[in-house]
Amino acid sequence: MTTTRRHVEDLQTPALLVDAAAVEHNLTAMATALPGRRLRPHVKAHKSTALAHRQAAAGHRTFTCATIREVEGLAAAGLGDDLLLANEVLDARRLGRLDARVTVAVDSEATIVAAAAGGVREVVIDVNVGLPRCGCHPDDAGRLADLARSRRLTVRGVMGYEGHVVGLADRAARVQLTAHAMQLLLAAHAAVGGDLVSAGGTYDCNVWATEIQAGSYVLMDTAYARLGLPFRQALSVLATVISVSPAYAVADCGLKALGMDHGNPTIDAAEVLFCSDEHITFVPEVPSRVGERIRVWPAHVDPTVAYHERLYVVSGDQVVDAWAVDLRGW
Amino acid sequence: MTTTRRHVEDLQTPALLVDAAAVEHNLTAMATALPGRRLRPHVKAHKSTALAHRQAAAGHRTFTCATIREVEGLAAAGLGDDLLLANEVLDARRLGRLDARVTVAVDSEATIVAAAAGGVREVVIDVNVGLPRCGCHPDDAGRLADLARSRRLTVRGVMGYEGHVVGLADRAARVQLTAHAMQLLLAAHAAVGGDLVSAGGTYDCNVWATEIQAGSYVLMDTAYARLGLPFRQALSVLATVISVSPAYAVADCGLKALGMDHGNPTIDAAEVLFCSDEHITFVPEVPSRVGERIRVWPAHVDPTVAYHERLYVVSGDQVVDAWAVDLRGW
Repeated sequence: MTTTRRHVEDLQTPALLVDAAAVEHNLTAMATALPGRRLRPHVKAHKSTALAHRQAAAGHRTFTCATIREVEGLAAAGLGDDLLLANEVLDARRLGRLDARVTVAVDSEATIVAAAAGGVREVVIDVNVGLPRCGCHPDDAGRLADLARSRRLTVRGVMGYEGHVVGLADRAARVQLTAHAMQLLLAAHAAVGGDLVSAGGTYDCNVWATEIQAGSYVLMDTAYARLGLPFRQALSVLATVISVSPAYAVADCGLKALGMDHGNPTIDAAEVLFCSDEHITFVPEVPSRVGERIRVWPAHVDPTVAYHERLYVVSGDQVVDAWAVDLRGW
Repeated sequence: MTTTRRHVEDLQTPALLVDAAAVEHNLTAMATALPGRRLRPHVKAHKSTALAHRQAAAGHRTFTCATIREVEGLAAAGLGDDLLLANEVLDARRLGRLDARVTVAVDSEATIVAAAAGGVREVVIDVNVGLPRCGCHPDDAGRLADLARSRRLTVRGVMGYEGHVVGLADRAARVQLTAHAMQLLLAAHAAVGGDLVSAGGTYDCNVWATEIQAGSYVLMDTAYARLGLPFRQALSVLATVISVSPAYAVADCGLKALGMDHGNPTIDAAEVLFCSDEHITFVPEVPSRVGERIRVWPAHVDPTVAYHERLYVVSGDQVVDAWAVDLRGW
C-alpha cells in the first residue's frame, strides 16, 4: 500500500512491526508443507487484506474467516473465490448479499434456518471434536446435513476445530489427540458427505483433513513459538522507553496494544514486571535510557493485531510497506 | 450522534452497551463529590468525545489524556480548554501544533527537552509516589522544574499517580497509603511550585490533591465494582448465544471484544469457562437456547472499550444513542 520508505526510528509508537523476511519465510514454509487448497488460511490472526493477498500469491485462494466483517472485507478485496465463515451466525443477511462464494458453518437447526433465510447457499456441518465450544455432536451431523439440504442449502462437508490439541508442547500427544479428533470428524463426514473435511491448526500431523485452517503461522507469537514449529516470530510491537529509574524502565506499549489472555509479552534481555493501559514496566539487563526503542513480543498475536490500525513491514531498519488492519470489528 | 431509535435486539453482536441511567447516575454522583475542576476526567477509560461532552456538561471542562491521539481528539471536539497529557512523550510536535491549552507530564531531562522542542508551553512534573512506573524521584522534582523553566516552559505544578493504592479493597489501607503517597507528592510540590497538585483515582479519600484524574467511574467494571464505590456498572457487552450443548453454551463475545488482563468477564447466573478469539464458553444456571441475547460484564473497562468502534447507549430495550469510540489508537 504505502511505498514511501522511511526509517523505523521515525514511526510513532507503539507500532506493530512485521519482519518482511520472517513473513516470506513463513509463507514459503507453509506453502511447501500445505500447497494450494490444502491450506485455507485463517485471516483472523492478521485481519489484513494486504497480507491475505500475499497468502493468495503463495497459492492459497480459499480463506477462513471468524467474523462477517472478515468475509465482507475479503470479498471487497477481490479475494472471494471461496470464503468459509468457520463460525455460527444467527443473522446471515450480510453474507447472503455478497458477490463472493460464501460457505458458513452450522451446528444447529437455528443456524441452518438463519443461513437459508439470509440467502447463503452453502454450508459445512461444524462438528465438535473435543474442544468445548461450537460444533454439533458427531452423531448429529448427518441429521443436520439432511435438514440443511431440505432447506435447499448445499452441504460441502464437515469442519472440526481441534483447538484443545494445537497448543500441546508434546508432539506425540498432539499427534495422538489429533488422530482421535479426526476420527470423530471422519465419522461425521461419512454421514454428511461432501468434498470438505476442514480442520484447524495441527498443520504438521493432520493427514485426515482435506484442508487445514491455519492462521497464526504467518506472524507467530511466543505461545506458538514454544512448539518448535518451522515458523519465525514475525510480529513485534515497537515501543519507546519514556521513563527510567534505577530499578526499572517504562515503555509506551500497554494493555491497549497487546492481547493479554496468554499473559505478559516478553522483551529481549529484560524481565517484564507488568503492563498498564499504555505502559510496560520492565527490568532490562543493561540499563536503558529515555528515548531508546525496544521490541515487545506479544504472547498472543490475534488479539494484539486487533488493537492496531496498521502493520508496518520492516526490512532491517527500513519501513518497506504498511498494511492496513482493515478487517477489524464485526 | 445517532438519534434513530432502535431495539437492542436489532444490534449486531458483539456490541458495547452503555446503560443511560447508570451513566447519568455516575456523572451526577461524581460531580457532587468532586465538582468542576476538582475532577479532571480521564478519557482513557472511554475514549469517546461524546462522553467527554457529557462530562463537560456535568461541570468538568479540564481533561486528562493518556495518548497524543486523545489530546488531538478532544481539541478537535472543542474540549481543549485545559488538556493534561498525564504521560511522557519523546516527540511532542503533534501537541505543540494544537489549537488548545495542552500541558504535558515530564519526569526527565529528555522529556523536558522534547516538550520544549515540540512547541508545548506548559508542563507538570510527574512524581513517582509508589507505583513502579513513570515519575521522577520526589527529591528530583525541584531540579526538573528549574530545568523546565530554563527551557521557557511554564511549570503548572506536580502530578502523581497512586495506582498501587486505587484497587485496594480495604478502605482503611487505601486511606493510609493514599496519605503516604500524597505526602511524597506535596513534598515535591513544595520544591516545584505552581497551582496544580494532580493525583489519580482515590477520589473518595484524597484531601491533598487539588484535582483528581478519575476515569473508570463513568462506566465502571467488575474490578472497581468490588470496592463498594457509589458508582454503577454501566458497561456491558451484548452477545448472542450461537451454539448450545448439554453441558455449556457459547456466545459471540471473545478476546477481541474484551480486555483480558484482569481475567475473565462475568455473565449473570452463569459460570464462565474460557474465552477464545470470538467466543465465550459458559455454563448457564438455566439452559440457554441458540439466539438468546446475553450481557457479558468485562473485568476491565479501558482495554475493552479500545476494541470497539462505538458505544450503544441503551435505556431499557431501546438504543437511544450511539457514541463513537473516536479516541482509539495513537
